[in-house]
Amino acid sequence: MSKYCFGVDIGGTTVKMGFFNTEGEVLDKWEIPTRTENGGENILPDVAKAILAKMEEKGVSKEDVAGVGVGAPGPIDADGVVHVAVNLGWGVFNIEETLAKLTGMSVKAGNDANVAALGEMWKGGGQGHNDLVAVTLGTGVGGGIIVNGKMLTGATGAGGEIGHIHVDDNESEACNCGNYGCLEQYASATGITRLANRMLAAVDTDSVLRQGEVNAKTVFDAVKAGDALAMEIAEEFGECLGKALAAIAGVVNPEIFVIGGGVSKAGQVVLDYIRKYYVKYVFHGSRDAEFALATLGNDAGIFGAARLVLE
Amino acid sequence: MSKYCFGVDIGGTTVKMGFFNTEGEVLDKWEIPTRTENGGENILPDVAKAILAKMEEKGVSKEDVAGVGVGAPGPIDADGVVHVAVNLGWGVFNIEETLAKLTGMSVKAGNDANVAALGEMWKGGGQGHNDLVAVTLGTGVGGGIIVNGKMLTGATGAGGEIGHIHVDDNESEACNCGNYGCLEQYASATGITRLANRMLAAVDTDSVLRQGEVNAKTVFDAVKAGDALAMEIAEEFGECLGKALAAIAGVVNPEIFVIGGGVSKAGQVVLDYIRKYYVKYVFHGSRDAEFALATLGNDAGIFGAARLVLE
Repeated sequence: MSKYCFGVDIGGTTVKMGFFNTEGEVLDKWEIPTRTENGGENILPDVAKAILAKMEEKGVSKEDVAGVGVGAPGPIDADGVVHVAVNLGWGVFNIEETLAKLTGMSVKAGNDANVAALGEMWKGGGQGHNDLVAVTLGTGVGGGIIVNGKMLTGATGAGGEIGHIHVDDNESEACNCGNYGCLEQYASATGITRLANRMLAAVDTDSVLRQGEVNAKTVFDAVKAGDALAMEIAEEFGECLGKALAAIAGVVNPEIFVIGGGVSKAGQVVLDYIRKYYVKYVFHGSRDAEFALATLGNDAGIFGAARLVLE
Repeated sequence: MSKYCFGVDIGGTTVKMGFFNTEGEVLDKWEIPTRTENGGENILPDVAKAILAKMEEKGVSKEDVAGVGVGAPGPIDADGVVHVAVNLGWGVFNIEETLAKLTGMSVKAGNDANVAALGEMWKGGGQGHNDLVAVTLGTGVGGGIIVNGKMLTGATGAGGEIGHIHVDDNESEACNCGNYGCLEQYASATGITRLANRMLAAVDTDSVLRQGEVNAKTVFDAVKAGDALAMEIAEEFGECLGKALAAIAGVVNPEIFVIGGGVSKAGQVVLDYIRKYYVKYVFHGSRDAEFALATLGNDAGIFGAARLVLE
């Protein structure tokens, strides 16, 4: 019986690493830098070295380790093949085979957002649920879909790429992707700032937002303080995101939405604005889906990665 | 080794029944009336009687039968429990257990649209694919999602209920469900007729549609004849459906969309209008999804139901 596993979350700047027991307790965690030069050729060798060094430090043999789970930013198919990860410099290759060769242990890999969703299901805001949609509201909008306890990878690893779902027919500014009216334009931290600046320029209404920095945090702080203009911005955020989650529910009919990322730090008020519009747009069969805040923060990735090898 | 199985597709008026070998050849098919009175209490006993009679007729014993698959109109969860099927008069009960008791054979049940999707994957327009979205454009718009070869049932059996995904922010007429701008208002046979009548009333342009009956068939016939007004209607149909399928692709990233139902009888032209707008709205990771016409027609349900018991 294996007693341990590793969870690895590869980001554009750092690789987060976790050493777990198979009950899902994190026994140690640390970070190494992500070396993206030369097509990211050093990243997996660095990860392997760090894992093998940790095993030596802890006196753990390969027989004691169930495997190494990996999350990385990019489309990764069900066989562990990454199809171009721009932020890492990676092209197309099999992560699982490559890292298995380097470590001599079994490896499972998945897209970082999907893996984080698995983490939130296992030990975070989605505990006790098998059908879950995790939404990360950060610089962009990421998503991870869990169906019957498993990540929905999709045919080409693009399952759960919800940030560019179209939610507004009347948008005049283009999204980074070139389309108009993508979810990310309204529900990411960047999107909320954009909505706020647009609203501040369009009307004369007094607002605390006119007195300092405008960003997702200050907008939701102002909402909590009862600022009318900030509340209008939050309504627009909630309508766009609620509408998108209603569409997602029309496809996968989840038990729960777990909302994470920087924007979610504002807490319950974020869920309230989303849910208000979710119930407006959703098909009745999915009306009772729950909404919860993510609880693992930046550790969701290492938890989910560890879970991947224990499935 | 079992040699046979049954596929049963329960509709509001008739029950379609198929007797299959385990390679998926249909050896016999027939229909019985659906008796919906008294809460539909006769439906499953009638089905059981018909199956047992067919086995006697063919000289087949229970040992030779892998099982009975059932599709029915309503949310049916992964355990075979139906949660109210209005058209059949059914409340909440376990279809699989009930019919297993009546037949003495193993039973698997699923929502009719999901089951039909499985049929199209197995022997229809989606053959050779494991990740598929089936879309039925009939009186309403139905959907069935197959992920990794399995039906996506959803937490409460409402997976793939795509007809009420919101696709138009500027709609003034309400959908049957009470919302405004549901996919069904533009992409169902009824929806296309509605679009056509609205367009005919709004403009003076000459059109062959002013000379006869207006419905999905006459609209697409007029499109094929080069009628400018009909082509505008088809653009609106294509934009709404393409936009919805792009959102669905952002969730499940399928290999292929299989388009069926009465509207799809117009053929390739329907796919062309959908695809034009699909590629406009979709996230690049799902841009290459294929589009195909469903080929099994009204038999998709019995094929999919048979497939259910062979999984």
